[in-house]
Amino acid sequence: MSKMPTVRPILDMNAYDGQMSGKNDQGNDLLARRTRNVGAASVLFYRDPIEMVSASGCWMTAADGTNYLDFYNNVPSVGHCHPKVVSAMADQAARLNINSRYLHQTTETYLDRLKATFPDHLDNIVLTCSGSEANDLALRIAQRGTGARGIIVTECAYHGNTATVTDISPSALKRGELPDHVVSIPAPSKLAYGDNIAAGFADAVNKAVTLLSDRGHGVAALIVDSIFSSDGVFSNPRGFLRLAVAVVHRAGGVFIADEVQPGFGRTGDAFWAFLRHDVIPDIVSMGKPMGNGFPMAGIVVRADLLAAFCEDVGYFNTFAASPLAAATGLAVLDVIRDENLLANAMVCGKYLREGLQHLADRDGRVSDIRGAGLFLGVDLSPSGEPDKPSGQLVGDVINAMRRQRVLIGAAGKYGQTLKIRPPLCLKRSEVDFFIEAFGKSLRECG
Amino acid sequence: MSKMPTVRPILDMNAYDGQMSGKNDQGNDLLARRTRNVGAASVLFYRDPIEMVSASGCWMTAADGTNYLDFYNNVPSVGHCHPKVVSAMADQAARLNINSRYLHQTTETYLDRLKATFPDHLDNIVLTCSGSEANDLALRIAQRGTGARGIIVTECAYHGNTATVTDISPSALKRGELPDHVVSIPAPSKLAYGDNIAAGFADAVNKAVTLLSDRGHGVAALIVDSIFSSDGVFSNPRGFLRLAVAVVHRAGGVFIADEVQPGFGRTGDAFWAFLRHDVIPDIVSMGKPMGNGFPMAGIVVRADLLAAFCEDVGYFNTFAASPLAAATGLAVLDVIRDENLLANAMVCGKYLREGLQHLADRDGRVSDIRGAGLFLGVDLSPSGEPDKPSGQLVGDVINAMRRQRVLIGAAGKYGQTLKIRPPLCLKRSEVDFFIEAFGKSLRECG
Repeated sequence: MSKMPTVRPILDMNAYDGQMSGKNDQGNDLLARRTRNVGAASVLFYRDPIEMVSASGCWMTAADGTNYLDFYNNVPSVGHCHPKVVSAMADQAARLNINSRYLHQTTETYLDRLKATFPDHLDNIVLTCSGSEANDLALRIAQRGTGARGIIVTECAYHGNTATVTDISPSALKRGELPDHVVSIPAPSKLAYGDNIAAGFADAVNKAVTLLSDRGHGVAALIVDSIFSSDGVFSNPRGFLRLAVAVVHRAGGVFIADEVQPGFGRTGDAFWAFLRHDVIPDIVSMGKPMGNGFPMAGIVVRADLLAAFCEDVGYFNTFAASPLAAATGLAVLDVIRDENLLANAMVCGKYLREGLQHLADRDGRVSDIRGAGLFLGVDLSPSGEPDKPSGQLVGDVINAMRRQRVLIGAAGKYGQTLKIRPPLCLKRSEVDFFIEAFGKSLRECG
Repeated sequence: MSKMPTVRPILDMNAYDGQMSGKNDQGNDLLARRTRNVGAASVLFYRDPIEMVSASGCWMTAADGTNYLDFYNNVPSVGHCHPKVVSAMADQAARLNINSRYLHQTTETYLDRLKATFPDHLDNIVLTCSGSEANDLALRIAQRGTGARGIIVTECAYHGNTATVTDISPSALKRGELPDHVVSIPAPSKLAYGDNIAAGFADAVNKAVTLLSDRGHGVAALIVDSIFSSDGVFSNPRGFLRLAVAVVHRAGGVFIADEVQPGFGRTGDAFWAFLRHDVIPDIVSMGKPMGNGFPMAGIVVRADLLAAFCEDVGYFNTFAASPLAAATGLAVLDVIRDENLLANAMVCGKYLREGLQHLADRDGRVSDIRGAGLFLGVDLSPSGEPDKPSGQLVGDVINAMRRQRVLIGAAGKYGQTLKIRPPLCLKRSEVDFFIEAFGKSLRECG
């Protein structure tokens, strides 16, 4: 781990490194083939990567027969390979899978259902294939609608992988600086802003507005992941975003709520994480769990902003909003409703927090527990002092938990936060399994 | 049609226009719901859009029971809802659908198979969800690898919908200019370059190189659709691209072959359309037919270029290269091989050209027939004079052919080209159906 940078853990933390491993990649085993095929762009979990073969519910099965409890992957959010989603996808794929330039009943039914989960002023939906495409489009709409170029982001934000959204994703940079039109501010943590997070965060946004104005860009948008996933998971106190959103609106900018990670009920108390802040986004982007693994994403947006944008270029996306995407997305919405997954995220999330708190009471290295529903962030501090963050212990614990058959990842500026986001169909017995594995792993890393 | 601009037909030609239609969009019919849901971003075929319900082979079925022969959609390239592709997708979706940070046999098998279709020097593959993401990444790799920023494109090029690739897609612009670092040149047509297309096109690239150099950008890449799809389909003479590619290489730039539209065997004589020119691309992008409608795309790239790029930011794509994408893509490769679709594209393409030539012999308005395999472009000139292009007749013919139950679209600077690209499983009887419908439509528009 010593060769790794202290910041930007998302892409690097705990990844397989061909040079470090000392393995001979000239062979014909799976890892060698992967390295040859994907080259420098290969990103794998764990120093000794896992070959997976199947998955169901909250569990994934490796080629060696080991079953892993998945507390990492927030895409298969209603459960791996959910039979209702799979069957909706298969049925539609056999019937019709075509672009959205023809009318289709299921597509509009899906859009109607999806729109109903948002506040009324968010009139229009544009579907895309990925969260990256969604955020890319959201930024362009914001810039067109405001006539300004500047974007405000948090310092470990991740908003995707296109050129434009990589520019606003500090956590994606291995080196180099953000471009001139992007200003980053600290995430809304106690460490950064003390006890009055709302005022502190709004003040930071205000300073960023001034800086962007001084640089001649103006402010097009404040964009934040509604639960600050890659910054380390910051959800409380409820409503802390209101002041910051008011600042950006006063400055003529729009507010983009990036729900790609927290959306679709993961926070338990609402379908979208921004709702806990009682704010009114001008654009909301969504993605990952939207098709439970089928590539689909999108934005919901004020009609006037979209209309202005479409005067210049319009937008068409070949694969998006197909009957196949719609049928799959509709099945995901059905399962969330029919299996009461929001309620389960609340109940199981509470039970999980209690277990974590119980561990924290006995082990001072568990220095903070944050989050909502089934999206939690747990800080680990080797010294027991929360204001001295370090990713070292988290890296060790992640690998220890893999041996305990639990998959989990890291977040935060120093990689000091365990990022917990199991499928929303989680059971109490699975929480028990996780807590026991976490306790053992902490002891092992003592 | 009179309100439409004469250039950039792709997004506008023949589209549903809510204002023009005079329909009441306050109702609850499908079109009204669509307009409410998608707003200004709604793009629909035909002045009176079609509601589709199912499709199989080369045919699509509308809600009113009408069967349409699909000569437009190049995504379901091995045939609509091909049972082997559908079943591979369904089986994998039921077993495992997860991101590529775990190893998976099918994923590497697919990448091995895909890589084998390319020249040896194209070492690495990076999968994405869409052709837009693929071209976005290709541009960034080109700019990083060359240290230059300038991009050379053709004047009606379309390379996708992200901010970065919209910048290099003249056909996507409803108004405004290309940015300073993008220079467009005329497509390789006789109209633009006379009889020596190779020399003329290379000379235009050379002038663009000088212009980009004068502007201080240098040249990062020449990027062209290998068959110039949206420019109007230009495929001959074989090898005409070689000189232009040599020019850009000498200037220090890379050559990106955009195979999103012509790739995967559509040209019949080879798996990739750039092969007919005997050129060596540094990056090839691919997409549309790759998953027969499942959202997948990607690039194949020189390992050194990818490695340089990954020093700065790396690349990870949540949905791409999943076991689901790999299993689906693999089934597409299997079907192309097992059903001899390249050979069929050659044979049926030849038969189709003969039918078109027969029509041209009797009707001077059919002024040029171009293309390869099952990707053809047919110019219609109301006056019978090929050097006086007009989209008017093509627009009328497209609507007449819809009444004859054939779906077809337009391309070219003035929308003067019928763009013909049926599924590769096309049968001779379906060619006959098309030719008869085309003949009738021409007479109807006489």
